[in-house]
Amino acid sequence: MTEIEIGRGKRGRRAYSFDDIAVVPSRRTRDPEEVSVAWQIDAYHFDIPVMGAPMDSVISPDTAVALGRLGGLPVLDLEGLWTRYDDPTPLLAEIASLDPAVATARMQAIYAEPIKPELITERLRALRAAGVTVAGALSPQRTQQYWKTVVDAGVDLFVIRGTTVSAEHVSGRAEPLNLTRFIYELDVPVIVGGAATYTAALHLMRTGAAGVLVGFGGGAAHTTRTTLGIHAPMASAVADVAEARRDYLDESGGRYVHVIADGGVGTSGDIVKAIACGADAVMLGAALARATDAPGRGYHWGPEAHHQLLPRGERIALGGQASLEEILLGPGRQADGTTNIMGALRRAMATTGYSDVKEFQRVEVVVAPYAGR
Amino acid sequence: MTEIEIGRGKRGRRAYSFDDIAVVPSRRTRDPEEVSVAWQIDAYHFDIPVMGAPMDSVISPDTAVALGRLGGLPVLDLEGLWTRYDDPTPLLAEIASLDPAVATARMQAIYAEPIKPELITERLRALRAAGVTVAGALSPQRTQQYWKTVVDAGVDLFVIRGTTVSAEHVSGRAEPLNLTRFIYELDVPVIVGGAATYTAALHLMRTGAAGVLVGFGGGAAHTTRTTLGIHAPMASAVADVAEARRDYLDESGGRYVHVIADGGVGTSGDIVKAIACGADAVMLGAALARATDAPGRGYHWGPEAHHQLLPRGERIALGGQASLEEILLGPGRQADGTTNIMGALRRAMATTGYSDVKEFQRVEVVVAPYAGR
Amino acid sequence: MTEIEIGRGKRGRRAYSFDDIAVVPSRRTRDPEEVSVAWQIDAYHFDIPVMGAPMDSVISPDTAVALGRLGGLPVLDLEGLWTRYDDPTPLLAEIASLDPAVATARMQAIYAEPIKPELITERLRALRAAGVTVAGALSPQRTQQYWKTVVDAGVDLFVIRGTTVSAEHVSGRAEPLNLTRFIYELDVPVIVGGAATYTAALHLMRTGAAGVLVGFGGGAAHTTRTTLGIHAPMASAVADVAEARRDYLDESGGRYVHVIADGGVGTSGDIVKAIACGADAVMLGAALARATDAPGRGYHWGPEAHHQLLPRGERIALGGQASLEEILLGPGRQADGTTNIMGALRRAMATTGYSDVKEFQRVEVVVAPYAGR
Amino acid sequence: MTEIEIGRGKRGRRAYSFDDIAVVPSRRTRDPEEVSVAWQIDAYHFDIPVMGAPMDSVISPDTAVALGRLGGLPVLDLEGLWTRYDDPTPLLAEIASLDPAVATARMQAIYAEPIKPELITERLRALRAAGVTVAGALSPQRTQQYWKTVVDAGVDLFVIRGTTVSAEHVSGRAEPLNLTRFIYELDVPVIVGGAATYTAALHLMRTGAAGVLVGFGGGAAHTTRTTLGIHAPMASAVADVAEARRDYLDESGGRYVHVIADGGVGTSGDIVKAIACGADAVMLGAALARATDAPGRGYHWGPEAHHQLLPRGERIALGGQASLEEILLGPGRQADGTTNIMGALRRAMATTGYSDVKEFQRVEVVVAPYAGR
Repeated sequence: MTEIEIGRGKRGRRAYSFDDIAVVPSRRTRDPEEVSVAWQIDAYHFDIPVMGAPMDSVISPDTAVALGRLGGLPVLDLEGLWTRYDDPTPLLAEIASLDPAVATARMQAIYAEPIKPELITERLRALRAAGVTVAGALSPQRTQQYWKTVVDAGVDLFVIRGTTVSAEHVSGRAEPLNLTRFIYELDVPVIVGGAATYTAALHLMRTGAAGVLVGFGGGAAHTTRTTLGIHAPMASAVADVAEARRDYLDESGGRYVHVIADGGVGTSGDIVKAIACGADAVMLGAALARATDAPGRGYHWGPEAHHQLLPRGERIALGGQASLEEILLGPGRQADGTTNIMGALRRAMATTGYSDVKEFQRVEVVVAPYAGR
Repeated sequence: MTEIEIGRGKRGRRAYSFDDIAVVPSRRTRDPEEVSVAWQIDAYHFDIPVMGAPMDSVISPDTAVALGRLGGLPVLDLEGLWTRYDDPTPLLAEIASLDPAVATARMQAIYAEPIKPELITERLRALRAAGVTVAGALSPQRTQQYWKTVVDAGVDLFVIRGTTVSAEHVSGRAEPLNLTRFIYELDVPVIVGGAATYTAALHLMRTGAAGVLVGFGGGAAHTTRTTLGIHAPMASAVADVAEARRDYLDESGGRYVHVIADGGVGTSGDIVKAIACGADAVMLGAALARATDAPGRGYHWGPEAHHQLLPRGERIALGGQASLEEILLGPGRQADGTTNIMGALRRAMATTGYSDVKEFQRVEVVVAPYAGR
Repeated sequence: MTEIEIGRGKRGRRAYSFDDIAVVPSRRTRDPEEVSVAWQIDAYHFDIPVMGAPMDSVISPDTAVALGRLGGLPVLDLEGLWTRYDDPTPLLAEIASLDPAVATARMQAIYAEPIKPELITERLRALRAAGVTVAGALSPQRTQQYWKTVVDAGVDLFVIRGTTVSAEHVSGRAEPLNLTRFIYELDVPVIVGGAATYTAALHLMRTGAAGVLVGFGGGAAHTTRTTLGIHAPMASAVADVAEARRDYLDESGGRYVHVIADGGVGTSGDIVKAIACGADAVMLGAALARATDAPGRGYHWGPEAHHQLLPRGERIALGGQASLEEILLGPGRQADGTTNIMGALRRAMATTGYSDVKEFQRVEVVVAPYAGR
Repeated sequence: MTEIEIGRGKRGRRAYSFDDIAVVPSRRTRDPEEVSVAWQIDAYHFDIPVMGAPMDSVISPDTAVALGRLGGLPVLDLEGLWTRYDDPTPLLAEIASLDPAVATARMQAIYAEPIKPELITERLRALRAAGVTVAGALSPQRTQQYWKTVVDAGVDLFVIRGTTVSAEHVSGRAEPLNLTRFIYELDVPVIVGGAATYTAALHLMRTGAAGVLVGFGGGAAHTTRTTLGIHAPMASAVADVAEARRDYLDESGGRYVHVIADGGVGTSGDIVKAIACGADAVMLGAALARATDAPGRGYHWGPEAHHQLLPRGERIALGGQASLEEILLGPGRQADGTTNIMGALRRAMATTGYSDVKEFQRVEVVVAPYAGR
C-alpha cells in the first residue's frame, strides 16, 4: 500500500478512478459469442451483471419489469415517489419540466410527502406478480421503521443503501440499526452499502451481507467532493473491497460476498474496468436513466438533490436517445459507451481472452490517467 | 519527506493542494446532530471554527457583528477603508461599480488616504459595544506604528497578517518588528501569518503566538504564482504546520498553538480538507465575500489589488446569492459547497464517524488529483 | 517494471502515451542531409519507414502507387470497398458527404456488400503492374477464407491486422487461424498485429512473423477506451514490444522481427517518439488520410465505424490542405507536425546526432506529460 | 536521478517545466529595496539579469540601446533583417500586418535576402557609439562565415545561438565549426547554446564558453514538441546545467560559466523559477516583444517561423500594453506577471529572504503541477 506524504503531519494513499486506468489485452483472444456475462447471487441468476439503482429517475414499477426481463436486477426505491404517492406519474413529468432555478425547492416539497407503508406492499406485490426478481431498497435511517412491511410484502433481495453505511452507526437520539442482528434475523439476503474502503467493507461483510455496494452511494461524485470534501476514487475502492472479499472468504470459511460497484459507472468502459478491479456486478444509475423509456424522462437525480438542509446533488439533464434494451443489449448507435453496454463488455472480455465475469477480474490493467486525449 | 529531483542541481518536495486530496469514510458513521464544530482559542469560545478575513470585501463593522453572532471570529482590517475614512460606504459602492479597465488605478487612489488612529479606536470600541469578540489585524509593516492605538482601544485577539510573515525580518531602513519581544510584552493573544512551511511556522510559534495563519496570506494564489513564482499548495502547507504544532507542543512543554488555514479555502469541501490536514480553524475570505450582505457587494479584493507598484491580485466578481447566515449555517441552496458550509462540515464528520474538530484531524485522506471530472 | 497498487486487490503498471514523453538532445549534432530514414524489411527496401494503413480513407489503388513511389509501403485493405465494388469511387464520395446523423447506418449498409475474390486478384495485380511493393491486409477472421486468393494473385508482404491479434485465438464455432502453421506454410513474409504487450508480441514473433504491428489496431483510441475500457498507451506498448524483439532475437538465434507502431501516430513528433521507443517503422492512418489526394476526401474511418452491432469508431473529418507528397516530404506548410513529416524526422535525428533509424532508437527521452502548455 | 520505465525496452527521466514547480518562502523575510538583482559576466556589469533575445521582434538597434540603458544586455541578431536590409522598418511593419494565411510564405521571401557583411559592421558600431554593451548573435551555421566581420566591427560579447548547439557537430559537407578552437582564438567572451542536458552543457563549458544558453533556443516549445517530438522541460534543464556548472567549476579549477535560461521564460514567475533552479540570468524573447515599443509591433517570431522547408514556429500575436521600461521596471499594470518583472523578482527574493541572485539559486522549491487552478 503506497502511502504518500501530503505534508509532514499527514499521509494518504494515492487513489485511482476508473478514468485513471485501462484494460490491456495481453494473452489469447476469444469469440465474443463464447463469453458469458451471467451473474448469480444467492439463489438468483441474472443474464447480465447489472443492478438498476433504486432511484426514481431509474427504476419505476414498469422499468423494473423491463430490466428484469432483459436479464438484470432492478431495485425499487421504497422511499421514493412510488411509495409516497398513489400515482406519481404527473410529478415525474413535472420534475422533468422544472426550471433549474426552482427545481431544488420544488423537489424538496414533492418529497416531503410521507411514505405510505401500504404503497410499499402494493409496489412489491406488483413486481412479484410480474415475475421478476423482487428487490427493494431502504436507507439505513428508515430500515427499522419499514423493514417489516417490506418483508411481509415479500422480497427476494433486500437492499440497504445510503451515502455511507457502516457496520457501527453512532447515534444518541435513537437506537441505531444493528446490522448484524438485523441481517441475522432476516430471511432474505441483504445487499448493503455504500462502503469505500477495505475496513468499512470488511465490517459490512461480517454483518452477514450477501453483497456490498462499493462507492459513496448517493449524490454525484463531483458535488460530494465539492461540498463534503469526500471522494472515493472507484478503481481503488473496488480493488480494496475485492481484497476484503478475499480475506473474508478465508476468515469466514467460504462465504463469498458479492462486490457491486455503485457509482462512477457511466459507460460500458467503466463497467469493464469495475469488473477488472474485482467487481462481481455493477449498479447503474445515470447509465440507465439515459433510456428514452426511463422514468426520469431525460433527467436523473438522487436523494441528495432534494435534501431539506444540505442539497448536495442536482437534477441532471441526460438527453439519451436509446431505449433501455438498446442501452443494455444493443444494437449500438453511438460510439460513446452508452449503448449496447453488455455487447461492449463481451467484446472487451473476448479481446482479452476471458470467458466469464469472475475470471475477467484477473485481467491486466495499466494506470494511464486519461486527459481527454 | 519525499524529495523529487527536478534536475541534477535541484531537488524539491512534491506538494499538494486541497484539490489533490479527498477525505474517505473508513469506519463508523454518526448522526450529524451529534457532531460539534466548536472552536476555542485562548479564553475565547466559538461555535464554528471560522475566522472572517481582515479584508474590506469581507469584514465591515456590520458584518463583524453578524459573523460574531453566528458563532465565528471576525477580524477587522485596521489598515482598510474603515480606518481611513469616516464613512467608506460610498467608496465600497464605487469600487463595486468600477470598470475593470480603471479599477486598479482608482483603488490605488482610494487606498492612498492615510490611516487615522482615532478611527482605529472608534471601530474597535464599536465592536466591543456590540458584544462580539474583538479582533483587528495589522500588517507587519505597520504593527509598530499602530499597535499601541489598537491595544489601548481594547482587543481580545490581535492579528498580524502579511503575505509572508517571518520571525526574523531583515531591514536596513528601520528597526524591524521583533515579534518575540512584541508578543511577550503584549497582553492579548496574537495570531500571526502567513507561513507556509514547517520551519517558518515553528519559528512563529516560538515567538509566543497563540495561532499561526497557514498560507500565503494575500493576493490570489493564481496571480501570486504567475507574478512571483511563489506557491504553497495548502494541503501540504497545513499538514506541515500541524507537525510543527506537534513538535512545538513537546518542545514548549505543552503550548498548543492553533493552526488556521488562510488561503485556498473556497468551499465547504476545502474546509473539510483543511481540518483533515490538521487545521484547528479556517480563515475565510472569498467564501464570505460571496454573501449578499457582504461589504464587497459581490466583489472581493486583497491588499495586493491596490499595491502601488506591483498590483498582484485583482478585484474579483463573485456573484453569490445567499446571505452570510445561509452561507454559514444554511439551509443550503446550491450543491456547490458555497452555502451551509458548517452543515457540510458536520455531515462530513458524521459520515466519517468523528465527533469534534480536533478528532477529525485524524480522518483518512487519499491523494487523487481532481481533474474536473 | 514499476507496478502501482490501484487498490489492495489490484496492481497495474503505469503506462505512457507519446504525449507523455519527449526526445531530448544530449550529445553531438549532425547535418539533416546526412541522416538516413531508410527502412528494410525482408528483401524490401523503403526510403521512408512508413506503412500506409489498410483503410479505405487512406489507401486506394491510386494512393498505393503514389505512396510506393514516394518511398513508403502502402497496404491495401482487402476487405474494404475496393474488393467489394468494381468502382467504389461514387461510394467514397457519398461517405464524405453523409450527414453525421445517418453516417453510421449508411456505412453499415455500404460495407454489407460481400467481398469478391476476383476483385482481390484484380487489385493486387494492378499494384504489381504499377511497379510498387505489393502488400494487402486481411483481418484474422477472414484470413483463412481469402489467403489463397491473395497469394495466388501475388503479394510481396502479407498483413494480418485486427484490433487485437493473438497467437492463440479461442473459438468454438470454427477452426481458428493457426498463425504458426499459416506463416510457416506461406511463402511471403507476414506482418501481424495489433499487439500491445511484451507477452502478446513475443507470442506473435514466435509464429514466424516478419513484423509486429504495435497498438490496438482499429477504432480511435478515444472511443475504444470509452466503450471497451481498453487502452494501450503507445510509448509503453512500443517500448515493451521492442524488448520482446530483443529477447526473441536472442531466443531465435538471430531473427530480427520488425516493430511497427500502429496507432497514436498522428504527427511527425509522434513518429519521432515511436522510433525513440524502439519502433522500426510506423503505420500511418489519419496522418495520410489528411492528404488532399487521399481517398477519404477529408474523412477517415476504420472498420469499427461500420461494425454491425457495436460501432466503436466514428467517421472523422480531418480537413487537411497538403498533398500526400507534401505531407511526407514537404515542403512544410504548417508548424503542426502534419506536413514534411520525414523532414521533421530527419531534423530530430540530426539535432540529436543520430544517423539512421535503428541508431535513433537509443535516443534519450524524458517523461514530461503534455498538458497543452 | 529518477529514471522511469516507459516500457520494458526504454527508460527516461521525469522532467519538469517551470509550470510544474513553485518557490516556497521558508525562512526570514527582507525588504524588497535591500535586494540586488545585478548580474556580472566577465568584465560586464548589468543592473538586471536579463538578456534581450537576438530576434527581430525583440531587439532592433533602438531597443538594444533602450534595454542597455535600462540595465540589461541586448543581443542583436546578426542574421536578421537589420543585416539584410538598409532599412527594414517597412518590412517589420508589413510583417505585423500580414494575413495569417500568407504570413509564412511572405516571411520566407523577406528573409531570403542575403546578409550584407557591411551592415553587420554598421549595426555593431552604432551600438558601440550609443554607449551600451555590444553583443551580437550568429547561428553556428554562419559563425565561420561572419565571425571575422563581427570581431572586426567590435563586440563585447559574442553569442552563438541555435536550436541545439553541440560541442561536436558532424557534417560531411563542410568543415564544421570547431567551438573549442574558435573560442580559444577569439578575444571576446562567447555565450553559446541552446543546450538542454548536463552532458551537452558540460561539453559546451569545456569549449571555453563564458555562458551557456539553456533551452531549445528557437521555435516555440509547443510546435517543437509537435513537429520534432523534442522537448526539454526548462526547470529540469536549468537544474541540470547548473550542476554541470558546479562540476566544471571544480574540474577547471575555478572557471565559473554562466547559466542563462533561454526559453519558457514568459512571466516574472518564470524568471523567479529559472533562477531558483540555478540560472544566473535569463534571455527574454516574447516577454520583451510584448512591449509597445518593441520592433515586432505586437508580433513575435523566431528563425523557425520562416525556415524554407520546415517552418516550425509561427508568428505569434502578443498584444501587450506596456512599454519596455514598464515591463522591466514597472510600475506594474496587470497582475499577470508581464509588467514590472524585475520588481516581482525583487519581491520574490525579499519574501524568501535572499539578497542577491546567486544566493537565491538556493531557495526552496516544491513540485506542484499547475493545472490552471
